[in-house]
Amino acid sequence: MRKSKSHIALVAGGAGFIGSHLCRALLDQGHEVICLDSLQTAREVNLDMLEGHRNFTFVRADIVDPLPDAVTRRRDISRIYNLACAASPPQYQADPEHTMLTSVVGTDRLLRLAEQNGARFLLTSTSEVYGDPEAHPQQEDYRGWVNCTGPRACYDEGKRAAEAMAFDFARLGRADVRVARIFNTYGPNMHPDDGRVISNLVCQALSGEDITIYGDGSQTRSFCYVSDMVDGLMRLMESDMPDLQPVNLGNPDEYTIMELLEEVLAQTGAASRVIHLPLPVDDPRRRRPDIRRAQTLLGWKPKIPLQQGLALTCAFFAKELYAGSAETFASQAALSVAAPGASIAAE
Amino acid sequence: MRKSKSHIALVAGGAGFIGSHLCRALLDQGHEVICLDSLQTAREVNLDMLEGHRNFTFVRADIVDPLPDAVTRRRDISRIYNLACAASPPQYQADPEHTMLTSVVGTDRLLRLAEQNGARFLLTSTSEVYGDPEAHPQQEDYRGWVNCTGPRACYDEGKRAAEAMAFDFARLGRADVRVARIFNTYGPNMHPDDGRVISNLVCQALSGEDITIYGDGSQTRSFCYVSDMVDGLMRLMESDMPDLQPVNLGNPDEYTIMELLEEVLAQTGAASRVIHLPLPVDDPRRRRPDIRRAQTLLGWKPKIPLQQGLALTCAFFAKELYAGSAETFASQAALSVAAPGASIAAE
Repeated sequence: MRKSKSHIALVAGGAGFIGSHLCRALLDQGHEVICLDSLQTAREVNLDMLEGHRNFTFVRADIVDPLPDAVTRRRDISRIYNLACAASPPQYQADPEHTMLTSVVGTDRLLRLAEQNGARFLLTSTSEVYGDPEAHPQQEDYRGWVNCTGPRACYDEGKRAAEAMAFDFARLGRADVRVARIFNTYGPNMHPDDGRVISNLVCQALSGEDITIYGDGSQTRSFCYVSDMVDGLMRLMESDMPDLQPVNLGNPDEYTIMELLEEVLAQTGAASRVIHLPLPVDDPRRRRPDIRRAQTLLGWKPKIPLQQGLALTCAFFAKELYAGSAETFASQAALSVAAPGASIAAE
Repeated sequence: MRKSKSHIALVAGGAGFIGSHLCRALLDQGHEVICLDSLQTAREVNLDMLEGHRNFTFVRADIVDPLPDAVTRRRDISRIYNLACAASPPQYQADPEHTMLTSVVGTDRLLRLAEQNGARFLLTSTSEVYGDPEAHPQQEDYRGWVNCTGPRACYDEGKRAAEAMAFDFARLGRADVRVARIFNTYGPNMHPDDGRVISNLVCQALSGEDITIYGDGSQTRSFCYVSDMVDGLMRLMESDMPDLQPVNLGNPDEYTIMELLEEVLAQTGAASRVIHLPLPVDDPRRRRPDIRRAQTLLGWKPKIPLQQGLALTCAFFAKELYAGSAETFASQAALSVAAPGASIAAE
């Protein structure tokens, strides 16, 4: 990807897992970054690698509330990335009202900010908009199979509503929008307790705890390493979109949860006992992105295979679990190693 | 239905088409009614039949904004009906951002009011949550086929998000909720210009204008007379719900639009020319509710056949179109004739 001219980018949710990598990559490309985060689910330590940078500003704010003056008085923001929302089921179900309002009210506030600044806006939506999909792999025009009354709906329907708002702003010429539908993503800076399958399995294996598998483990997921995801998001933001369509971003290599477990056990050398628990309500059976649209429009596809990405992730969690917390966070140097996709994106 | 003990009921959207009939029926049952309406799409004349009543209070407010003191300082509201939202495509697409916020933020504010008052809350959702359905007729557990990026999404996804919020409040014990999925409803007090098929066809026929049919007219709808709908809503509110499920309310008699047109032409004696226009984007091809759940739980089914309901509706629009506007509104007496279902509900 060619390096774009220098921007002032606002990254909502910039202290989160993917957000922190995105901020880093934007700074590496010479952009100014304003990170907006409530620190509700973010690891504050994610900010450590960013806060010393002269082009980085952190503003603590919840996008459900009116945006702070530090943001609303600006007229020079040219890129707005919205990654703000609790994203793992235990986190987004802890306060479902807040999850819904984050997606809908938060996205509305940021869309209005984009309108006011003439900024381009990118919403990170999710593969959850496909629900428990009947179509496989999932193309962008598949309308999904979402239970709008269930316990996952606060997130799934919140994101569907946020997409609707974004495209309405675009249709009315109020903002220039991009919508990415992010599939499972993993890598350093994940929260060990976020309840997602990779952090669960790796941390349980590394700790020698029993490993919990929901259902029989035959359900599938497709895991994208975080540097590939950040590369995709930045390419999408800088692309010329021919029409009002979302774009899937994810790794199309599909694994059953049991296959993932085998890889984790092999890499960690753990001999943990495996305990099967019931599948959560509305848990999707299969997930694999059709990424032909991203390939065509963005020239993008993931570069990091699961084995490699998992090794980097295991190394990160091993440092987290075995060293003092002050030293455990993946250093900037370690992240450069862990993020070859991001450095390619910065070429 | 047995007459319930006297309540203080808040009806958001109570000046609208269905809302005004609901207010009237609640007053007729001896309840106190607070009507909250922004008058964005309501016919102000709908209030005329209500405002003289000693148990009726009108508060002009938009539920997107913080609720007015007149409402928030109360602790004695025991029933909250949320009917507030522009509901026909031309109306809800005129300001899609406002439509989405009405469903999500407005519903959230009313759910919080229900929580604060210990009131029971009823959301009027919509058959639009089924989108352009692949399953026919539509049962409540059908997850729908909604395009969340299209021009109808502000309404469809807004209502799906509102359902998600309502059931989250219920799951958390914050409010006792009911969700009705309303299918096409018609009758007196409809706005002649609301863009819905029955008002369009009847008004065009009565005016001798060309009649516009979208597509070839083979798409189907199921039309419920408004008194039946109000009866269903009140029964649902007063029912004991065994689980967290929405309930379809609508008339299962299914007509193609061309069949409806024939009936309208027969009743009005019009000889209008028929003009076919292209189908709108994402227009559903078929709509018919499966109402077995409502029949079982509420002992409810519609009583007014299309021919009878259409006669009452044509009479209403004829008065609207041919008399001075001050005299045209269906009087209270006329509404009693037009609402046998409501009087049954009041037994």
